[in-house]
Amino acid sequence: MQQVVDFILEIDKLKGVTRKVRPLGLDRYENPAEHSWHIAMLASSLAPYADPGVDLSRVIAMLLVHDLGEIDAGDTFFFAESAGTKAKERACVERIVSLLPDPQRSSFLALWIELDEGETPEARFANAVDRAMPVLLNLANDGQSWRENGVSHEQVVRRVGPPIHAGCPALWAYLEARLDDANARGWFGAR
Amino acid sequence: MQQVVDFILEIDKLKGVTRKVRPLGLDRYENPAEHSWHIAMLASSLAPYADPGVDLSRVIAMLLVHDLGEIDAGDTFFFAESAGTKAKERACVERIVSLLPDPQRSSFLALWIELDEGETPEARFANAVDRAMPVLLNLANDGQSWRENGVSHEQVVRRVGPPIHAGCPALWAYLEARLDDANARGWFGAR
Repeated sequence: MQQVVDFILEIDKLKGVTRKVRPLGLDRYENPAEHSWHIAMLASSLAPYADPGVDLSRVIAMLLVHDLGEIDAGDTFFFAESAGTKAKERACVERIVSLLPDPQRSSFLALWIELDEGETPEARFANAVDRAMPVLLNLANDGQSWRENGVSHEQVVRRVGPPIHAGCPALWAYLEARLDDANARGWFGAR
Repeated sequence: MQQVVDFILEIDKLKGVTRKVRPLGLDRYENPAEHSWHIAMLASSLAPYADPGVDLSRVIAMLLVHDLGEIDAGDTFFFAESAGTKAKERACVERIVSLLPDPQRSSFLALWIELDEGETPEARFANAVDRAMPVLLNLANDGQSWRENGVSHEQVVRRVGPPIHAGCPALWAYLEARLDDANARGWFGAR
């Protein structure tokens, strides 16, 4: 039991990591812990749009662990990720899950790797949901993190379009139209 | 799809609600969104201590929706809950899930009610996890929210002991000893 407690207190640190998007109406930036809750809820809510073969409880399990690597690595803005980002995050996940005994240790690590590799239907759906969430907040926020970080419409479409389309085509069809509208309103950074 | 988006932006408000416990090492108070993520992870980590019949994915689904009622009702300190608290929270949950079409609307509401009623093995396990989390943070925090709010050792044991013991006896055995130790250290409010 002490191992579980050590693990759960270690991951509390995720609440102190800072992302680039602000929750609606709040001055502070979002943290990956509340973001992980939000995308787990988005995945559940999007169940009717998932392929029938997708096991939603595995999607949610993946989304809950997917940002643990940011405890050591920090949040890397999606549009600034480098080859080293994922390696640092994976080392952090391995360190943290090693606080737990098996089967939890292996199970959490396997979920993180599965999402990172993005090859199963569950990983594709989870990736789509994770990519869509900051877009939805920006669309409700007049493009706050796009404007603050100089991200263009073309960058967003090129980087998030393929993974969202691959995991949840109906979600991408919706977002593509909304992004065009946001572009017409000038909600992107000038590049 | 617009209904899902309206719902997911509405529940973003949970990030702005304030609880009584602080994340470890942070000055601010915790919010129910990050708390919900944290207890979903605690439930997963405690899988070996759950009764074999407990469906963990239903436990996690319950924990993810269990604080939605605080969007309108605010967070009520556990030791100050009144008869009206749950009614206000339920009205809020009904308002928010009505943004969604079925089956998601009914499914989220049913999960919230099941946890509130606390009669199924999943609800009992989920309740134990939810009650244990602030205790674990306080045990790592020199009793921060107990001292700030004048909560006694006897109040904690009387209010959280039965639900934690009912849902996860091994967790209560661990916490009971830790709470005795915390009492000896003077980490409770004087009552």
